[in-house]
Amino acid sequence: MSAPKHPVVKPYLITRRLKPENQETPIQFIENDFISNNLFYRRNHFTYPKLTYSNYFLPINGLVTTPLLLSMQNILQLPSKTLEVVLECSGNKRSLFEPKVFGEQWGKGAISQGIWKGVPLRTLLGYSGIMEGAKEVVVEGYDFGKRTDIDKVFSYTRSLPLEKALHPDTIIAYEFNNQPLSFKHGFPFRLIVPQWYGMASVKWIKQISVIAAHFTGPFQNIDYMYYPNQENDEGAHPVTTMNVNSTIQRPLDMARLNKGKNVIRGMAWTGKGIITKVEISTDSGHTWSEAQVGDSKSGYKWVPWSYEWNPVEKGMFTVMSKASDSFGQTQSTKPYWNRNGYGYNAIDQVKVKVE
Amino acid sequence: MSAPKHPVVKPYLITRRLKPENQETPIQFIENDFISNNLFYRRNHFTYPKLTYSNYFLPINGLVTTPLLLSMQNILQLPSKTLEVVLECSGNKRSLFEPKVFGEQWGKGAISQGIWKGVPLRTLLGYSGIMEGAKEVVVEGYDFGKRTDIDKVFSYTRSLPLEKALHPDTIIAYEFNNQPLSFKHGFPFRLIVPQWYGMASVKWIKQISVIAAHFTGPFQNIDYMYYPNQENDEGAHPVTTMNVNSTIQRPLDMARLNKGKNVIRGMAWTGKGIITKVEISTDSGHTWSEAQVGDSKSGYKWVPWSYEWNPVEKGMFTVMSKASDSFGQTQSTKPYWNRNGYGYNAIDQVKVKVE
Repeated sequence: MSAPKHPVVKPYLITRRLKPENQETPIQFIENDFISNNLFYRRNHFTYPKLTYSNYFLPINGLVTTPLLLSMQNILQLPSKTLEVVLECSGNKRSLFEPKVFGEQWGKGAISQGIWKGVPLRTLLGYSGIMEGAKEVVVEGYDFGKRTDIDKVFSYTRSLPLEKALHPDTIIAYEFNNQPLSFKHGFPFRLIVPQWYGMASVKWIKQISVIAAHFTGPFQNIDYMYYPNQENDEGAHPVTTMNVNSTIQRPLDMARLNKGKNVIRGMAWTGKGIITKVEISTDSGHTWSEAQVGDSKSGYKWVPWSYEWNPVEKGMFTVMSKASDSFGQTQSTKPYWNRNGYGYNAIDQVKVKVE
Repeated sequence: MSAPKHPVVKPYLITRRLKPENQETPIQFIENDFISNNLFYRRNHFTYPKLTYSNYFLPINGLVTTPLLLSMQNILQLPSKTLEVVLECSGNKRSLFEPKVFGEQWGKGAISQGIWKGVPLRTLLGYSGIMEGAKEVVVEGYDFGKRTDIDKVFSYTRSLPLEKALHPDTIIAYEFNNQPLSFKHGFPFRLIVPQWYGMASVKWIKQISVIAAHFTGPFQNIDYMYYPNQENDEGAHPVTTMNVNSTIQRPLDMARLNKGKNVIRGMAWTGKGIITKVEISTDSGHTWSEAQVGDSKSGYKWVPWSYEWNPVEKGMFTVMSKASDSFGQTQSTKPYWNRNGYGYNAIDQVKVKVE
């Protein structure tokens, strides 16, 4: 009879749905920038695809000079690029919208990051060539299923405008954190589109096609659109670049703290540009002070920040964080409400009681 | 290169705190009555104790005729009793109180159940004898630490009135679901007090003492008290028996459903008595219908219930569940608000959109 001397205490993914698997990162319990593969949030549209890798080939077709059929070895032998990139689901923080919106009630953890290694999509398109009139590059995943709104089977497919597809940092990734990409995150190849919300980073790539028109698949023209009105589709526009955002990791919401030194810490990130400032308020937004912000030069990662708070009186406090980026974007008090709940980026807040 | 043919998709504990470990059961994703040990909610007041089992002995002392020092073998050789019992943290559903209360923001999953095997405490007290004037039985755990409100170290210690301590179903458990009790859940021995909130079921039992007075330890006279007022302690009274309660497991809150057949299902439980009725409303509480309720005779378990709903129109709906028990207790619209957020048992509800 014996017991573990040091029982392991660790956080887990937070389950939002199992069919398909949608689980979020326990972001408040991440102590540094590093997200291990098993705590990377999982967001699926369908059940996992069944793949046979013995005959995996990647077709590159459509408006190309030379259609290609690449083997895994072909791709692995090309010059690679390694990037640290945050992926954020566009539904991250959806549960915070008021009025509430339907759909997966993501908390603050539909976001993760890590080191991605892969081949620039630009390199592959360089080999295939692109014909005149090309407008978009369509990337299809092996995952597919029936939608509830259209009685038809679709694969998960998204397009990128030519400019974004040819950006040198848009890569076909096959390693995450120096390990082969795991099956659940898109093995053998997934697209990584820095600066855009995660829906663009198609997993289990099946096919890449260059087209002359605007792609109109349902994961682009129905889902992942901002609908500003509850009752109609007026003003609808696509979800693309991540909004400037921040999350308070400590203290936890509704925590009890002691008087004296308390460290408020969290993370901030944005799509276009870099984080230039994170401000903290401990008086419900009346006054703001600058937090210490980590190195934000890499651009595609989130930056950690911290602020030392020394409450001298007991009471209840609302602690807020507000990030700004190099394109002049700043988090605002109210989020941009939209019917399907994308892109939430209001000022973050937690309530605490100092005892 | 290969990938799992059938990737495992499973729910995990939901982390509320890591130091000490407080994680709740993903209760919406439990498909039947069975809670595996690794999904049993974990609620600790302190870091895990360090125990040496090679010299584990359980003292029974105080107002007893014959003080005892029992070895593990002594206890395991006594006649045992096996019971199916739900344990619910008295802070379960705390996050639902309005106005919000401070402390661990438990959702609906600080509850689990299983099959407990052990020796009735009554049996042990039968061997020790109880002297005249005895009023309570104090059970001390091996877990200890400093409190934030009192600058002193306490072990986790609770008492039971003699009547509850001598109830034949109050047991010293050493097996859970036919396996040795796991360390995190109190190995080698934990108290199981059916019908009471989980704080009574002391883990890692260190000592059992019979006393002539009312025990006044802080986990009984400060914590685990209902304080009905925000500003003062008037009307404070101890947390003991579980309230009648129910939880909707499906559909999930803010889910999108299709028209036609939808099964609403969940669980209901109570402290004293048995569940006699579960009613469902799909129109925000205007009308109610009885759900089909599973076998509730065992009393100490929760009972599963289900209700077939056939919405014919699209729209938004508030689905509610309301349980009643054999002592005439029924869930009400508003919870009994108390400053530390114990015993939440308002009518459960989820919002859904039928498309």
